[in-house]
Amino acid sequence: MLKLFYAPGTCSLASHIALEEAGAAYEARRVDFAKAEQTTPEYLAINPKGRVPALVTDRGILTETPAILAYVAQSFPEKRLAPLDDPFEFARLQSFLSYLCSTVHVAHAHARRGPRWADDPAAHEAMKAKVPQNMGDCFALIESKMFAGPFVMGENYTIADPYLFTIANWLEGDGVDPGRFPKVLDHRNRMVARPAVAKVLAAVQA
Amino acid sequence: MLKLFYAPGTCSLASHIALEEAGAAYEARRVDFAKAEQTTPEYLAINPKGRVPALVTDRGILTETPAILAYVAQSFPEKRLAPLDDPFEFARLQSFLSYLCSTVHVAHAHARRGPRWADDPAAHEAMKAKVPQNMGDCFALIESKMFAGPFVMGENYTIADPYLFTIANWLEGDGVDPGRFPKVLDHRNRMVARPAVAKVLAAVQA
Repeated sequence: MLKLFYAPGTCSLASHIALEEAGAAYEARRVDFAKAEQTTPEYLAINPKGRVPALVTDRGILTETPAILAYVAQSFPEKRLAPLDDPFEFARLQSFLSYLCSTVHVAHAHARRGPRWADDPAAHEAMKAKVPQNMGDCFALIESKMFAGPFVMGENYTIADPYLFTIANWLEGDGVDPGRFPKVLDHRNRMVARPAVAKVLAAVQA
Repeated sequence: MLKLFYAPGTCSLASHIALEEAGAAYEARRVDFAKAEQTTPEYLAINPKGRVPALVTDRGILTETPAILAYVAQSFPEKRLAPLDDPFEFARLQSFLSYLCSTVHVAHAHARRGPRWADDPAAHEAMKAKVPQNMGDCFALIESKMFAGPFVMGENYTIADPYLFTIANWLEGDGVDPGRFPKVLDHRNRMVARPAVAKVLAAVQA
């Protein structure tokens, strides 16, 4: 059975929801960041990067959200969570996932993870100060150019939806009013109402 | 015909090499960063993010290196540039691509792109100072845990190879001695000797 290592408030929520939407048999195992469990030798043996998510499969362990999301879509093709038979549409989807992981998540991380990129506390404050602007710019681009509607990629729900939902939940904490992005906000509200999402949120927040 | 927008010294090199290895019919079009051509209305109409690479196809424009690389592999399946028929192996490959784009490339970017994440010039210097450590840590993990050999993912050359090659070329400029990573350095040297790589490097540096 698949086992997902997750932590509340992190991007692991996207993979968690995708597994639930796919109807996968999986076990969710919380990593306690408050106790720095992600830095223990036991967890580093699972994911040497000391991050979540990590997905344990019967063939090995997978990390990185875009890779896990596409793996879930490909492992449960009957759920149609990605346009698997169309290289161009699949690439469009992957481009969106890649933008979230390499630009938007990174923009967010500068609010609290400044020590990753500089040792000077004043630099951490300078990074934190720019997060509202950067997250606002990212979501302005998503709202105006990327979000097709009613789902991220268009008519069909895909693995891009739980990933956008996960990161859109961070807007208020990053000092950005989600009301600036009506399509993203409406999507977020519709996502919460999905049974799979509600089930995962209840489990994560328990 | 495919058209790749690229700039010398950037991650677009990975997509450029992949197109060449695939035997694709493509045109390479340089974007002049010295003239800030990536910020002109003409280029922003191609890629609103103002970055390279961008790949123009007959169905639309693709951006983001991991998405373009997988698209090239899927569009030329006979070249076997990715394990397309094995969701787990494909996910392992995608995990590597995702690590490069969201962690390693981002670590590198803090040397010169500090203004993306802070307005204070002192913060830019603090970020720059930490780049050698971060790039060294990333490549230590690649060398010890990720690089299978003789190619990144093992016996077969894949789209991960030009991407690692591209970023490994940045080590000296980021103040890291590539001699610390013998497997990565050997791979880099073998990559330069490949005809497709030599051809692209000559075109880019012309």
